[in-house]
Amino acid sequence: MEVVKSPLEMQNIALNLKKAGKRIGFVPTMGYLHEGHLSLVRRAKQENDVVVVSIFVNPLQFGKNEDLDRYPRDFERDCSLCEREKVDYIFYPSASDMYPEDFKTYVEVKDLPDVLCGKFRPGHFRGVTTVVLKLFNIVQPDNAYFGEKDYQQLKIIQRMVKDLNVPVNVIGCPIVREPDGLAMSSRNKYLSEEERKSAVFISKALFQVKETFERGERDVNKLKDMGINILKQAPLIREIQYFEVVHPESLEPKEIAESSDVVAVAVYIGNTRLIDNIRL
Amino acid sequence: MEVVKSPLEMQNIALNLKKAGKRIGFVPTMGYLHEGHLSLVRRAKQENDVVVVSIFVNPLQFGKNEDLDRYPRDFERDCSLCEREKVDYIFYPSASDMYPEDFKTYVEVKDLPDVLCGKFRPGHFRGVTTVVLKLFNIVQPDNAYFGEKDYQQLKIIQRMVKDLNVPVNVIGCPIVREPDGLAMSSRNKYLSEEERKSAVFISKALFQVKETFERGERDVNKLKDMGINILKQAPLIREIQYFEVVHPESLEPKEIAESSDVVAVAVYIGNTRLIDNIRL
Repeated sequence: MEVVKSPLEMQNIALNLKKAGKRIGFVPTMGYLHEGHLSLVRRAKQENDVVVVSIFVNPLQFGKNEDLDRYPRDFERDCSLCEREKVDYIFYPSASDMYPEDFKTYVEVKDLPDVLCGKFRPGHFRGVTTVVLKLFNIVQPDNAYFGEKDYQQLKIIQRMVKDLNVPVNVIGCPIVREPDGLAMSSRNKYLSEEERKSAVFISKALFQVKETFERGERDVNKLKDMGINILKQAPLIREIQYFEVVHPESLEPKEIAESSDVVAVAVYIGNTRLIDNIRL
Repeated sequence: MEVVKSPLEMQNIALNLKKAGKRIGFVPTMGYLHEGHLSLVRRAKQENDVVVVSIFVNPLQFGKNEDLDRYPRDFERDCSLCEREKVDYIFYPSASDMYPEDFKTYVEVKDLPDVLCGKFRPGHFRGVTTVVLKLFNIVQPDNAYFGEKDYQQLKIIQRMVKDLNVPVNVIGCPIVREPDGLAMSSRNKYLSEEERKSAVFISKALFQVKETFERGERDVNKLKDMGINILKQAPLIREIQYFEVVHPESLEPKEIAESSDVVAVAVYIGNTRLIDNIRL
C-alpha cells in the first residue's frame, strides 16, 4: 500500500494505471474509518483492479460553526485498516494542496441542496461537489463508492456526474449499522455513554415508520408524527432538524408515501449532529 | 472525418482512443469557422494524434438580450473546412443532449468574471466554464486550444482547470487578424459595409496604445485616453463598453502599465458587440 500526498503525483499514478488498462475503484472518505467505509472498500476491491481510498477532511464542506476543528482523526489507524483490506493507494492531501490561496472555482448543483441537510448547512453541498469533482479528476476512478447514509450527498453527486458528463460510475452502498441499529458514523465518537443511548432512537424511529408503511399506512403526516414521537422519547435528543419522507430522486417532500421513497432524519444530541435514513 | 452527435458516443470514442494511447487535441468552437479557428486546428494537428473539433452554440453563455438566435451557423461549410484540415472528429451535439430538462449543475470561477466582458454579460462565464468542463469530460483531450481573442475566457478556463485538477493542457493561441487588423470573429459577419469600416478602429486603437507604451508611456490613464480617442473617430462605434489595461493573470486594472499587461476593449457597432485585445 502506498500513501500519496501530492495531488499531481496521485493523478500521474492514476493516469498511468488507466493507460495500462486498469479499472480504478475509489472510496473518498474524511478518515476515521469504520465498518461503513470498509464495506465500501470491500466492494471496490471486488469490482476493480486497483483501489484508492482518499482521506481528506474537506474544509470547504464545513460551516463556520461546525465541527471542522474537532472532527475525529486517526491516520495511523486508518492506514492499518486500509492495509488489512489490501487497499492499493491512500490519497492523503493537505488542505493547502487541495485549495491553494488563489483557488476560485466551485461546482454547484441547484435545487437538490435546498432541502434536508442542505437547508441547515448552507454551502455544505457546494463544498462536497467541488471536492468530489477534484478528487475524481485526480484519482480518475471508473467506479466510486459512497454510503447511502449520506443519501442527499449521493443524489447530488450522481446529479453532478450526469450533468457534467463525468465518466465515473457512482455507486451507493447500503448503510452499515451497529448491532442496536445506530448507523455507523465517524461522528458517533463524539457521543457520551448517555448520548449513545439516546442515539438508538434515530434508527428505531425509522424502522417503526417503515414497518407502519409496510402495514399499509401511506399518510406522510401520520408517518412523520409517529417517527417524531419516537425521537421525542430519547431524553438527549435536543433538536430534530428534520424528519421527512421524500422522493428518492427529486428529494421533494411527499404527502402520500410510496414504495422506494426515502425517510430521512437529522437530529442534534448535545453538540453532535447525526443523520440517518431508510428506504420505504 | 466522422461527425458525432451523441455525447455518450463521443465519450466512448475518446475513452477508447485514450486507452489506445492516443493524444487527443481539442478545439471547442461555436462553429461558423474562420481562419482564427483553423489556426487552432492546425496547431492541434501538429501536437496530437487525433483532433476533435466541437461545434456547439452554447445557449448557457448567452444572455437574454444577446444574439443566441441569430448567431451565424453554417454546418456544411464548417464540415468541409474541417475535412480540409484533416480533423478526425466533429462533435456536434444538440442543446437538449447537452442540457437535458433536469440539468442542474454549474461550474463557476469567482472574481475573474467580475471585470471586462463578465461585468457586461452576467452569467456568461458561468455558461462558458460549465460547457467547457462538460466538453472536456466528453472529449477527454490532452490538449485544448483557445484563441487569445477571448482573453478573459482563456484565463478563466485555465483557472478552472487548475482549481479542479482537470488533466487538460489549456493552450492559448495568438489572435488571427484580417489584413487591415480587425480580429477574426464569427460575429464580423453581422457587420454592414459601413460598420466594417468603423470596426478597423478597434485594432487601430490597440496598436497605437502598444506603440505609445513601447515609446515609454506607462501612465494607464494617458494610454486609455489615447485609445478611446481613436475609437471615437469611428463613426459607427456607438458604445465603448470598456477599454482597460489589466494584469495578464488577475485581470485587475492597472494604473502603471507594465510589459505583458493586456489592453482589452469591447465596443458596440450597431447591434454587434466586438472585442479585441493586445499584449503590451
